[in-house]
Amino acid sequence: MFEPRYNSELLQKAVDAFSRLPGIGPKSALRLALYLLRQPMEEADNLATAVTDLRHKVVYCSECRMISDAPLCPVCSDPKRDKGIICVVENVRDVMSIEHTGRYKGLYHVLGGIISPIDGIGPADLAVEPLMERLQKGNVREVILALSTTMEGETTCFYLFKKMSHYQLKITTIARGVGFGDQLEYTDELTLGRSIENRQLFKPE
Amino acid sequence: MFEPRYNSELLQKAVDAFSRLPGIGPKSALRLALYLLRQPMEEADNLATAVTDLRHKVVYCSECRMISDAPLCPVCSDPKRDKGIICVVENVRDVMSIEHTGRYKGLYHVLGGIISPIDGIGPADLAVEPLMERLQKGNVREVILALSTTMEGETTCFYLFKKMSHYQLKITTIARGVGFGDQLEYTDELTLGRSIENRQLFKPE
Repeated sequence: MFEPRYNSELLQKAVDAFSRLPGIGPKSALRLALYLLRQPMEEADNLATAVTDLRHKVVYCSECRMISDAPLCPVCSDPKRDKGIICVVENVRDVMSIEHTGRYKGLYHVLGGIISPIDGIGPADLAVEPLMERLQKGNVREVILALSTTMEGETTCFYLFKKMSHYQLKITTIARGVGFGDQLEYTDELTLGRSIENRQLFKPE
Repeated sequence: MFEPRYNSELLQKAVDAFSRLPGIGPKSALRLALYLLRQPMEEADNLATAVTDLRHKVVYCSECRMISDAPLCPVCSDPKRDKGIICVVENVRDVMSIEHTGRYKGLYHVLGGIISPIDGIGPADLAVEPLMERLQKGNVREVILALSTTMEGETTCFYLFKKMSHYQLKITTIARGVGFGDQLEYTDELTLGRSIENRQLFKPE
C-alpha cells in the first residue's frame, strides 16, 4: 500500500486535489504533480486558469440546458437549426455524441438525469418543467426521446410521453435494433427479437 | 475515434489542459472537466490553487535537490538524521520510496536522472558536481548508491564510484538479490546466480 504522505505540504495539497478527481488515485495524482513540477510555469498556470474559468464562467443554456459560454448555446442560437424538433437527452455528453454524428439539425433538451427510484431521482429533479414550457410556446412539432434503452430510460420515456400527450406533437424515440457493424450471433436476444418485430423497409443508401 | 471539439470554448480549453497531462486522453479529460462542472466552485478553485502553488512555490533543497517547501528540505534540516551518510538516488520518487520504508536515517542526494547515452544524458546533465561539493566538506563517511539495477544505473554507479575514489569514503550499493516474498523458480538467472555468489551470513531478525 502506497502511503500518500510527502515532506512537502505544497506537493501534498496538489496530490490531494488531483486525487479527488474521478479515476485518479494517489499514485496517478503524484505522477501528475511531479510532471507539472518539471514543466514550465505557464503549463501549470494554463491548467489552473482553464479549471477556474471552466467552473466560474461556463453557464447552462437557458433554452436547452446544454453547457455554454453564453446564455444561449451555439445550437439554440444557430438560425440554421430546425427549431421545430427537440431531441431530449439525459446529459451534456449525449448532446456531444449526437452532435458528433453530424446527422441531427434540430435542437436539444438536456434533462440532467433520468428517473431512477433506486437513486432517489424523480421527475422533479429533472428539467421536465422547462421542457414543458418550451413546448407551450407551440413552435415544436416533434420531440425525439433519445434516452438510454435501460429500465430507467424506458421509465423516463414513458413518463415524458404521458406528460406530453396533450400537446399536438409527433413523439419519437431513436431507432433501437442491431448496431451497425454488429454480428447477429453476438446480439442479445431481446434486441434481436425486437429488431425482427420492428423490421423496416430496405432502403439502399 | 472521439473528436475532441465542443461548442464551449471554456470546456475546450479545460479539456485541452487536462489532455496535456500524462496518462490523460481526451475522453478522460472531458470526464474530468464535466465532473468539475458539477462540483462546488471551491473544488475547482482548490485544484487551481494547488496547481499554481505547487509550480510557483515548490523549490529544490539546496543540499540534496529534493523537492521542498523551504530552501533546506525537512530531511536535511532534521537534526536527528545522520549527516555522515548520503544515499544517491535518481529522482524524487526514489527518495519518497526509501523514506516510506522508514529504514533509512541518513541524507539523500537526488541526481535528477541517470547516465543514458541513448537518451543523450551525460554526467553534466546530472547533479554530480553538487554531490562532489557536498563530499568536499568532509563530513560524509559513506555514500550509498541506490540506483536502478539496469545498464544505465550500473553505468552511473561506476562513473560515480570512479569520481569519488579519491575521497576517504565507504561506497556501498543497495543489496541486490532475490526480493522478499519472491519465489526462486520465478527469479531470473542473473539475479539468482549473483545472490548465490554474494550470499550473506544468516542473521535471524
